[in-house]
Order: sequence, then structure tokens, then C-alpha cells
Amino acid sequence: MSKMEVFKRFSRTFNENSTLARMLIVFTVGGGGLMAYSDAKPENGMDVVNPSEADTRKKRVVVLGTGWAATSFLKGLKNSEYDVQVISPRNYFAFTPLLPSVTCGTVEPRSIVEPIRNIVRKKNIDVHYWEAECFKVDAENKKVYCRSNLTSNPNEKEEIIVDYDYLVIGIGARSNTFNIPGVAENCHFLKEIEDAQKIRRTIIDCFERASLPSLSDEERKKILHFVVVGGGPTGVEFAAELHDYINEDLVKLYPKVKNAVKITLLEATDHILNMFDKRITTFAEEKFQRDGIDVKTGAMVVKVSDKDISTKELKNGGAVSTMPYGMVVWSTGIGTRPVIMDFMKQIGQANRRVLATDEWMRVEGCNNIYAMGDCATINQRKVMEDILAIFGKADKDKSGTLTVKEFQEVLDDICDRYPQVGLYLKNNQMRSLTDLLKDSKGNAAKESIEVNLEEFKSALSKVDSQMKNLPATAQVAAQQGSYLADCFNRMEECEKNPEGPLRFRGEGRHRFRPFRYKHFGQFAPLGGEQTAAQLPGDWVSIGHSSQWLWYSVYASKLVSWRTRALVISDWGRRFIFGRDSSGI
Amino acid sequence: MSKMEVFKRFSRTFNENSTLARMLIVFTVGGGGLMAYSDAKPENGMDVVNPSEADTRKKRVVVLGTGWAATSFLKGLKNSEYDVQVISPRNYFAFTPLLPSVTCGTVEPRSIVEPIRNIVRKKNIDVHYWEAECFKVDAENKKVYCRSNLTSNPNEKEEIIVDYDYLVIGIGARSNTFNIPGVAENCHFLKEIEDAQKIRRTIIDCFERASLPSLSDEERKKILHFVVVGGGPTGVEFAAELHDYINEDLVKLYPKVKNAVKITLLEATDHILNMFDKRITTFAEEKFQRDGIDVKTGAMVVKVSDKDISTKELKNGGAVSTMPYGMVVWSTGIGTRPVIMDFMKQIGQANRRVLATDEWMRVEGCNNIYAMGDCATINQRKVMEDILAIFGKADKDKSGTLTVKEFQEVLDDICDRYPQVGLYLKNNQMRSLTDLLKDSKGNAAKESIEVNLEEFKSALSKVDSQMKNLPATAQVAAQQGSYLADCFNRMEECEKNPEGPLRFRGEGRHRFRPFRYKHFGQFAPLGGEQTAAQLPGDWVSIGHSSQWLWYSVYASKLVSWRTRALVISDWGRRFIFGRDSSGI
Repeated sequence: MSKMEVFKRFSRTFNENSTLARMLIVFTVGGGGLMAYSDAKPENGMDVVNPSEADTRKKRVVVLGTGWAATSFLKGLKNSEYDVQVISPRNYFAFTPLLPSVTCGTVEPRSIVEPIRNIVRKKNIDVHYWEAECFKVDAENKKVYCRSNLTSNPNEKEEIIVDYDYLVIGIGARSNTFNIPGVAENCHFLKEIEDAQKIRRTIIDCFERASLPSLSDEERKKILHFVVVGGGPTGVEFAAELHDYINEDLVKLYPKVKNAVKITLLEATDHILNMFDKRITTFAEEKFQRDGIDVKTGAMVVKVSDKDISTKELKNGGAVSTMPYGMVVWSTGIGTRPVIMDFMKQIGQANRRVLATDEWMRVEGCNNIYAMGDCATINQRKVMEDILAIFGKADKDKSGTLTVKEFQEVLDDICDRYPQVGLYLKNNQMRSLTDLLKDSKGNAAKESIEVNLEEFKSALSKVDSQMKNLPATAQVAAQQGSYLADCFNRMEECEKNPEGPLRFRGEGRHRFRPFRYKHFGQFAPLGGEQTAAQLPGDWVSIGHSSQWLWYSVYASKLVSWRTRALVISDWGRRFIFGRDSSGI
Repeated sequence: MSKMEVFKRFSRTFNENSTLARMLIVFTVGGGGLMAYSDAKPENGMDVVNPSEADTRKKRVVVLGTGWAATSFLKGLKNSEYDVQVISPRNYFAFTPLLPSVTCGTVEPRSIVEPIRNIVRKKNIDVHYWEAECFKVDAENKKVYCRSNLTSNPNEKEEIIVDYDYLVIGIGARSNTFNIPGVAENCHFLKEIEDAQKIRRTIIDCFERASLPSLSDEERKKILHFVVVGGGPTGVEFAAELHDYINEDLVKLYPKVKNAVKITLLEATDHILNMFDKRITTFAEEKFQRDGIDVKTGAMVVKVSDKDISTKELKNGGAVSTMPYGMVVWSTGIGTRPVIMDFMKQIGQANRRVLATDEWMRVEGCNNIYAMGDCATINQRKVMEDILAIFGKADKDKSGTLTVKEFQEVLDDICDRYPQVGLYLKNNQMRSLTDLLKDSKGNAAKESIEVNLEEFKSALSKVDSQMKNLPATAQVAAQQGSYLADCFNRMEECEKNPEGPLRFRGEGRHRFRPFRYKHFGQFAPLGGEQTAAQLPGDWVSIGHSSQWLWYSVYASKLVSWRTRALVISDWGRRFIFGRDSSGI
């Protein structure tokens, strides 16, 4: 492939989402709005320093994070009338679904990362990136406070203060230790590239330690006991990868210790992969049993020391048992980052788990702050909360009753604004909202139905039960990011010609249609070239064919042609040469 | 390429040197010789623990190190009558000539390493590997004391004591700081894979730091000042790689700071690459000047603080100047490792720089201890020291004079034992040793020449001036390793039928011919796809064609088909996609 061709393909990929990109609006912001830096020097001559001073007409968008949500936002953003600043301690985007593969060297760390500067540099908008970590959001004064970790000297940490007009928060989450003693100190996590690299080195270290001549059999078994906590897709995939790594590659190099190896998978609930179809759960549990992976369900970790891990059975009187380990990988779910906690207190969301936003990704109670991905959740509006407003809006003639005709006029808006309504209808095999009303009126003829407020309430009383929080997955974050980019691209346009549903509790229409998540399915690789796939419409596929589906979906979803080529060559290499076991 | 094919190729490679491998000798060592371990447990059931107990007839060879010398020894060893234990803190062999490429991501770290277990596992001899670092050699009791660094707890370091019959030391050297203050704390070195990885991260960190908005131009320039100390091949190659990395890849991602970048190369002598031909030196200096790399010769570093580096001019009154830097890479030469220093004191070599061995790699003053590579030097025997013995041995009829016939009988032995003699003849265009004698006797006819001791001395008086220490290169270490393996393979055979030269100061013959280094030339990559090559016979080639020679020689010298495939694909990748700049 010639260099030229590759570049062409590159740019084609970058422009794939351009159907949405209509070049639009010029924000003319008079005066003000200079960027402030904590210790900006006045003699400062480089134009990189104050990117917004040069052109004060542009609105300053500050994006926190370079994960799925933020990167997808940046890739989707096409409106050159923004001045964008990206702030993240990590100057690259990582394709996290392949992290479990990195732990065992099936894929190399560098193959799944792409520098954020590379992702944004071919755009026709001003994007600046600062490698720093935000430690405070000041919503009142529209500033974010950040700190650079780049100098080795801790007294010298560079602080920068950045002003924004719009703030987009996509900084993800941290691993959740549930404050269980010893977890933070003694366990490995699986959120960042560095975590995966550390796990890889630790696996090899365990094998080298166990091979030392001075050990007893018992010590050897302790060292080669690998514990995975959390039976979700990540934990299961890691356990499967580890099993393959050991049985396909390491046993050849460490034949004398292979009988001492044990993998234990701990899960607090009754089954692993419990968010999947029952068929997948059963298949996975049976496969792991055949593979010799010890799956312990109903066991909650209560303590981790530097040598032992203690679990408590959730049934049968809660017996506590303790086992020695060589390595523990903790993969039980996500927790909130301190800066988000802090921000939530500031804006009166202290009681919540993560930042609450509305369906347009706007953080509740804040102006011009958006949040998406794992650090936020959409606080869906309940129909029953707004039932009075909906009824009032629909009852145009203020007759106190709603005719089918009146109702049909606001039907689409209701379904747009409250997606649970559509979901309820679908799950109850109803064709339209009028079926609902019909239900509440007995068997009257459709056209003559007329409901009062109480009947309307009773008809819609069950729809809110359909609301579900979105899972904290890459898929959700990526869709949110590109949704928000689309909103930003057409903000001025939609201000003039709003395209969203009716505002039931206000005047006019919402600017944009609310975010809707589209689920494309989920994979759970189970090792031995077998993968379970659960696709929309409860279509379940397990085995080698889904492994190939997995390969192709993941390859196609990678962020650039470079990473695509590298990951595919990593897979080929693993197939030919096996995984490397050097201790680096 | 099918898996099978690859394996076939693998084994073919491994057997390439089998012309030397004649399966030979059975060492029957009666009784004794059990391995002792510091804290070996009696209940210990695994056979890995005491590999030599199973077969007490085998001689125990302990190899320290997994670098060029040790790996080449292990690859060459074919005699299954040894029980081999390899001890090194690094469980892989690294192809160090490509380290400068790793610093800038031209080649990935994992592409140039091969697990030592992989290298030895297909041999038909018992090789055990322990990941531990030797901290003491007890030559008297034939034991080595080692410590494993694998546990994170420093109080828990596993100690192992290993007995040997033969000890082969190939642990290399450390970087030499010459005790200049601040060097160890503030400089990067370039000896291990981890060093290269750290340099790579630091380069990116410097660029990210310099891009932060809060900095002045001056601070930016400080951070982007890269200093390379040492104008040898490694330093020069690194400076060239860094220049290419910045100008081919980083300027695209950091366009705003490119004018602040500066590379300085410091060299204490008058020229860089002073071990090369003058043409190469001049070309390199001119190319660097064109590239904007600031070469400062005659400048010795006297101090490195966390921000500044101070140099002293060796001429012109020794003015000291200080400059701020962002990163310093120290590549000035090698120093002795503490364990070797300690061992040298023990055996009365305290005054030397590195371990002295004889021409058969045996450490002087020790029984059955061999040393090779960067931690040792061959202490060549001087002709003039042995001149009496040589004369006595040659003068068979004890007439007090040497006839040409007598002399010719020992000629080959002299040339074998004292390679400087052959070198002297070659450099003075003499065809044989008799020319030497002739010289000292005026123009007498060849056959009638007869010399006495004094005349003999005077004839040979200048030959010792030809002696040179071998350079500390991978090429020397690798040749020493495979030479020693060959000696070990045929030890018993050569004990019976010695093939070495006459022992001039003893009886009989040496078992083996002494080690002879064969120089295949040296490369100095200068960046921009240009390389200088100096091949035997003063053949000098500079430019793009030597770059291709460099590519092919390095690819062919890599230790396995796996690394070969990986490095070539890395080169291809760099060509297509450029070098990655993610901060991992």
C-alpha cells in the first residue's frame, strides 16, 4: 500500500460521518472572553498560548477527557466556529475493549492507541490539546482548573486555568473498590493501558518466581494462583485470555510448574455474565468448568491482604474463607472520579452516583456544561411527572378531555420526548398510543374515544416502568459523543429552526431531538477462539463463528487505519509465533 | 506461512551451527555434587528444584547473564553431558544494536527481545533458567549467591545459592558515569530495554510539557533542548534517530513548538565517531551540521543538575559553561558492575578495570571460571615475556642458536599462540616469520640463517606493539560466546587430543586454539536513511546504499524468525504510518 493511498483512506475514514456536517454558524461574541492562565507570562509570544485571543468571535469549547465519549465528540465535531481545547492526562485514545487482550500480549498496547493529536489534526477546526488533569470545575465562573503531571518534581506541577463557553465532560470513571480493605493496595485493575502492561509483567513474574529452585510445592501453588474478581464481560474475558496464554504459550516455556497453576473467578451474584442471555451464561460456566477455571459465584470479597484474599459467602450463613494468591485482578465495576464527586457537591448532586444529565447531555442545574460516557447518566424524565403538562398541551380546546384527534397531534412529540412510551407499546405489542387510550376506555370505537385527565393518567401509568439506565459501555459513550458533536455542529441552525419535540412544560420546541441509544449487541470472548455474541433481537451466537464476527467487528471499529493494521498483524503474529513472555 | 513451516525454519536456524556439534563425551562424576540452595525445603517434590540430583554424572555449568555473550554461548552449546543453569535478572535476550531505534519507536521493544527460555528449550541439553541477580561469586567453594527481585516486598527477596563445576560469566557492564555529580540521578542511559522505553516517554513528555499554554518561549526552549553526551556510535545514532523522529513525525503533531527544538551532541575528544575512518567522521559532522544538530567537541561534562548541564572546555583555558536542558541521554562508555568489582578484589585483580582472562576466556587466577563480553577483557600474552621459553622450545638441539629449520617447526605454534606476530608480519608486508629473522641478520641467504637469543629477541622486539584490546561490542561478545561453547562441546575430546599450539612455558599442547576475533565491520546510522559503514579492509561506504546494507545485516543477525519478522514489519510500519507518539 503506497503512502498516498493510505493517506487517502485515512481522510476518507475521517470524513465518514460528514453527512451530518453542514457548515453553519458564526458565533460573534463581542469583547471579553480572554483566556486566563494561572501564571501566563505577558511576554509570551507563541500563538499556541492564547488560541482564543486571536479570534474572540469563536466560542470556546473545553473537552475533558480522551476516552470513547470525548474522542467520538471530537471526531464528529465539524463546525469550524468553535475554538476547542482538549484536556486529558492521557495524550491518546485507547481502544479499551481490547485491553484484556493486551494483558496477555495477544495484542500490543501500542496497537490499540492513537494519539489524540493525530485524530484531531486533520480537521478544519482549531483543536488544542493540553496534557493535564482537571482537578476542579468552577461552573459559576466558567473555568476549569488543571494540573500537569509531566514534571518528575511534585513541587513543580504546572497549573493551568482555562475559561470555557461550553464544557464537555467525558473523563470516564475509575475502578470501584467499594472501600473493601486492601483492594486499592494489592489488586490489579483493568482500566488503562498501564494497568494491562502491569498485569502482563506480573503474570510473567509469577511464573519466574514459581520456577525458582528454592520453593516448596505449596509456595509454588500460591504464587501461581490467579484470582479474577468480577464475573462481568471484562473479568470473564480476562480469565479466558489468561487461561489461553498459560495453556497455549507459557506451559511450553515453564513445563515444570504447569500443574501448580490455578485460575479462580469470583462473582458476588449467582451467575457470571448475568447481563447476558441465560444460554450464554450457561455455556460460559460450562466451558470454564471444562477449562479448569474455578468459578465461585455468590462469594463477596471482604478483604485483600498482600498474600491472601478473603471472601464471604452470601448464602449459607456467610462463611468467610481465605485463600492465598499470586495475583488478583479486580474488575467489579466503576466508581466516580474525585473531581466529579467534588463537582456534584458544588451543583447539588451530592447524593447521586454519577453526574445526572438531561436527555440532551446537559448536566442538570448547570448552564453550558455537558457530560457523557461513564462519568454521567441520563436522568430520564418520567411521563407521570409531566402528565399534567402533557395533558394540558394536548387538550388544545381546554375542554378537560382529550379526543383522539387532539391526542394524535402530540403523539410523535410524546414518543420523542419520552422514549419509554414507545418501548412500552412495543413490549406490549401495541401499534400506537391510541391503543393505550382504548385500553383505558374499554372497547369503545377508536375514533370516539375521549379521555379525561384521570383516565389519561391511568393509561400511561405503567410506561415509566420501562425506563432503564444505559450501561457504562464504550458503545454508549461513543454514541453520546457523536450525538453531542452533531448538536454542536447545528446549534445555531437548530436555535432558529428547532427540530426537537414540543416542550410540554414550556413554550415552543426543544432545539434537538433527545439522545437515543441504539444497541448493536455485545460480545463475551470465552477463550479457545470461541466468543459469545448477543445481538439485538435476542439473537445469540456462541462459538468459533462469533469469534470471527468479533474479530471483524473490533477490527472495523478501531479508530484509524494504523491501529487496524497493527491489531490485525498482532493477531496474525500471535497465530504464527504465539505470545511473547519476555518480562518487559 | 503455515505454523509448521515456521517451526521448521526455526529448527533449521537453531541447527545452523551444528557442524561443530559432534556428540561426544560422558562425564562420569562419582558421588558428590549435590546442588545446595539457601533455603531448599526437604519436602520439596518437584524435579525442577534439584535438576542435578537426578543425574549426578553431569557437570554443572552455571551461566550468568542473558546478553550477547551468554546467549551466544547457550545457542552454541550442544553437549548434552552438561547440566546448565542460566541466572540473569532479565528473562530475555535483547538485540541491543537496535536500542537507539527503540527510543524513538522506529522499532518496538518487544520486536528485539526473545525469551531466553524460548532460545534454549529446543536444545537437547538440560538448561534451567532462574530469574535472579548474582551478587557474589565464591570461587573457593564454587558457589554463586543470587537474589531474586521478583517480589515487590524488599524484605522478602528470595536468595538462592547455586553450586557449579564451571562458571561462565557474561553479565556485561553498566553505564559509566565517571562519578560526575548528578549524572546517575538526572540522565537517561541507553543500555536496557527499559532505558529506551523511558527515553521514548520522556521525549513525548517534553513535547507535551512544552505545548502547555502557561509557558514562556524561554521555558519552552529549555524543555525542548535534548542533550546527548558521548559521540560514539550509540550517541550519534540516538541523536540522528531523535532528529528524524522530531522532523518526520513530531513536528506534524506539535507544529507550534517545532522552532523551539534543539539537539546538542557533546563529545570530550576532538571528533565524533573517532573510532571510525576519518571520511566517516567528517561526513557525520557535516551531516549533523546541515541537520541543525549542534555538535560540541572538546567539551567535558562536569556536572548535571536537575535542570542544567555544565561542561568544561578541554582547551582554551577550560572555560565552564552551563545550559538548561529538557532531557540528557548519557552514552559515554561502560563501567564495571559491582559484583564483578567485588569478585576482582577476591581474586587479586582489584587494580584492573574489568576481569582479565587468558586467550581461552579463563579468568586469570581461577579454576573453571570463564568470563566474556563487556565484563571481561583478554589479557594477551606478550611475546617478550615468553621469549626465553619460546627460544628454548624452538632450540631442540639446545645449541644456543636457532636454525631456520628449527624455527619453522614452531612457526605455526608461535603465530597461533601470539596473534600479534601474524598481525605484525601482515602490517609490515612480510610473508613469513623467517623474513623477520632475516631482517635481524642482514642479507644472509634464508636457509643459512642462524640466530642466537639476543638476535631472536631483537627480531621479535616490536611485535607486541600490535596488541590491542578488543572493543566492547556485541560482535566481540557473540564471537566469544560461540567460541567458548565450541570449547565446552569438545572439552573431553580435546583433553585427549589437544589441538591448540605448543605450551611454550609448559609441557605438551594447549587443549584448544586460542580465541581469535574476526571483525566484520561496523555501522553508524546517521539518520535520514543514511548510514556509514566501515567494513574490513578499510572499505568505507556512506549513504542510502549502506542503510540498506544495515537493514539487511541487522535483520539477518536477529536471534529468531519471530524477531526478524517483527522488526521488518516495524520498519514497514514506520515507513507507512510514521512513528507513534502516544505517551505510553
